[in-house]
Amino acid sequence: MSFFELLKTDGSSKARLGRITTTRGVIDTPVFMPVGTQASVKAIDPRELDEMGTQILLGNTYHLSIRPGLEIIQAAGDLHKFMNWNLPILTDSGGFQVFSLAKIRKIRAHGVEFRSHLDGSLLFLGPREAMEVQRILGSDIAMVFDECPAHNCSAQEANEAVERTITWAKVCREQPRAPGQVAFGIVQGGIDPKLREHCARELVAMDFEGYAVGGVSVGEPEPEMMRAVELAEPFLPAEKPRYAMGLGTPAQLVELVARGIDMFDCVLPTRIARNGTAFTYKGTVSIKAGFNKMDFRPIEEDCECYACKNFTRAYLRHLLNVNEILGLRMLSVHNSFMYMKVMRDIRAHIAAGTFREFREMFARTYVPSQKVLAGRQGHILSTLPVSENAAAI
Amino acid sequence: MSFFELLKTDGSSKARLGRITTTRGVIDTPVFMPVGTQASVKAIDPRELDEMGTQILLGNTYHLSIRPGLEIIQAAGDLHKFMNWNLPILTDSGGFQVFSLAKIRKIRAHGVEFRSHLDGSLLFLGPREAMEVQRILGSDIAMVFDECPAHNCSAQEANEAVERTITWAKVCREQPRAPGQVAFGIVQGGIDPKLREHCARELVAMDFEGYAVGGVSVGEPEPEMMRAVELAEPFLPAEKPRYAMGLGTPAQLVELVARGIDMFDCVLPTRIARNGTAFTYKGTVSIKAGFNKMDFRPIEEDCECYACKNFTRAYLRHLLNVNEILGLRMLSVHNSFMYMKVMRDIRAHIAAGTFREFREMFARTYVPSQKVLAGRQGHILSTLPVSENAAAI
Repeated sequence: MSFFELLKTDGSSKARLGRITTTRGVIDTPVFMPVGTQASVKAIDPRELDEMGTQILLGNTYHLSIRPGLEIIQAAGDLHKFMNWNLPILTDSGGFQVFSLAKIRKIRAHGVEFRSHLDGSLLFLGPREAMEVQRILGSDIAMVFDECPAHNCSAQEANEAVERTITWAKVCREQPRAPGQVAFGIVQGGIDPKLREHCARELVAMDFEGYAVGGVSVGEPEPEMMRAVELAEPFLPAEKPRYAMGLGTPAQLVELVARGIDMFDCVLPTRIARNGTAFTYKGTVSIKAGFNKMDFRPIEEDCECYACKNFTRAYLRHLLNVNEILGLRMLSVHNSFMYMKVMRDIRAHIAAGTFREFREMFARTYVPSQKVLAGRQGHILSTLPVSENAAAI
Repeated sequence: MSFFELLKTDGSSKARLGRITTTRGVIDTPVFMPVGTQASVKAIDPRELDEMGTQILLGNTYHLSIRPGLEIIQAAGDLHKFMNWNLPILTDSGGFQVFSLAKIRKIRAHGVEFRSHLDGSLLFLGPREAMEVQRILGSDIAMVFDECPAHNCSAQEANEAVERTITWAKVCREQPRAPGQVAFGIVQGGIDPKLREHCARELVAMDFEGYAVGGVSVGEPEPEMMRAVELAEPFLPAEKPRYAMGLGTPAQLVELVARGIDMFDCVLPTRIARNGTAFTYKGTVSIKAGFNKMDFRPIEEDCECYACKNFTRAYLRHLLNVNEILGLRMLSVHNSFMYMKVMRDIRAHIAAGTFREFREMFARTYVPSQKVLAGRQGHILSTLPVSENAAAI
């Protein structure tokens, strides 16, 4: 059985239907991977993840190394055993966190010296260390240790980041792995076509089991994010899965699938839930807002999630207002369920040959947030419909 | 069908096996009622409540009147519909909260003028208002509006509180009710035998459907709490259920059942869960403590709760340390499940005629907290075993 099977390619776009097979289970692509940074998907339990059809979770090298620490996870057996999740896990390398979270970092030839965002202790993470941590975590898919610069960095910085990413990827490729563990390369290069092509070609030559587009979800406006994916995708082999890291809103996922992406992870569904905001097929809705005070409908009509089958907006709003945990939990459940449902819809429509219609419907129906709209060039904001929720997401 | 059936009385103690029948369902007594103060049992969802065998929940007049406000609950239908809980609900009258939470109160002949603990707004709650709120909430069991003085109040204050409690109970008795709703009287009187007897006799003459012992769980040491119950119980009719308000630890529940109590509610299981402490048959354990770092056993061996069937102490400790909601949720689930299990055990042992053995076993095995031990008179603390957890509960 090959790691990835490409089952069908959409006629109207670059959308792909596929299947990843790991020793711990099968993953139908395009897939959304709920994020369990600290060995738990925030506010959601494994039974709920199972009920929403989760086939793979994300874990994080940086966070798990700091707390609980590898010694404890190793004593438990591995990350699967530690958190009682027996289906596949993809672990991020920590590269993104070293560049986004850590204090006072110094980039060295063999990695990055940095201070923990928690207690300031001096730590070092490079390609060898990142792969060793992921070997111990025992994830099914390990990510290479890359350099992820700011989206508005200088040309020289972008260039250096790509060169280091390539050098480090080679080192990662040679490190020992956990049984059954595969490794994905990460393409950097911002929105410079030459850099993206160069980085992609070098990594593809190393023959990783899959490829990610990195350097997105770093604060860039939506068109820049789409462009980064469009610049990298043509150089990625069709027979391997492609993963766009840290993205995105439901409408962005549909558009990224249309651009040839197979795998996604994003903290948005659980993060905005904790702010009292829900994702729906029509855009985001602030459940905490006053207009839901006496709204006895579910978050979204016809939604099959536990929250929508059991509770009204008025009740959830009350729970959010009085800080009852059930409120943010139910929004987390609904939002994550909604993401999984969008992916099921995408797969069904690619399979049925109706992805184009679905994509058009989604773009017509889903009202983006003002922040996303503001990022789109050439549009006059005031003439566009805006989401019920004005929160920046 | 009568409201309460006394099925069996224990030969070795005053323990009773009974059954309450309401329009919304049957309640097997002795029963523990999880506390849903603000229309949600903290950190637990209805499915989990159902799985642990919950037959009745508590709601609160004072809190629900302030948020979300009666208008919203009335628009939903009633409290059951608002929170999607179709089994019985008992509502507290707000008396306890007015005396424990509210700021600047003035006791008037017809009730209490007080300022909201939230925004300081001026509110009034008396017997008429408390019963009207409970009628609108549509609870199955309504509590009378009583005066609950501090456990160390003067003799005159205790006397006045009892007289007002009796006067107010009469008013409560005459108020309109929701369909199928019954009302319970609340016996006050501290640890004054004459006052407890007087209050009990007056309330019993009013023929309520059940009786509560109030003025406990107000900071008194354990022997005083036991004494309050012992002083009131002999004057309560055998054919009606007895409810000890706001109590207690698992060991206290067993002892209170032995003193003739049928119904309990307590915030301890969910409150100490949020502090990282678990209840077990051997006493409390701080799951957050360092000694659980590499303990890959469940919270309690052989426990059938979702947390114990799925997670280790080491994992739960990690979740608590990194503030993942799943940690405090799982401790809330375990602790509430443990309380329900103790009540199931109690009922099974009364039914089997082995309650005495169970009571002795429990007293031998369950190590009370230092605070409880300190409250027991005539014991030398240093010679007693102490719980694994030194937290004051």
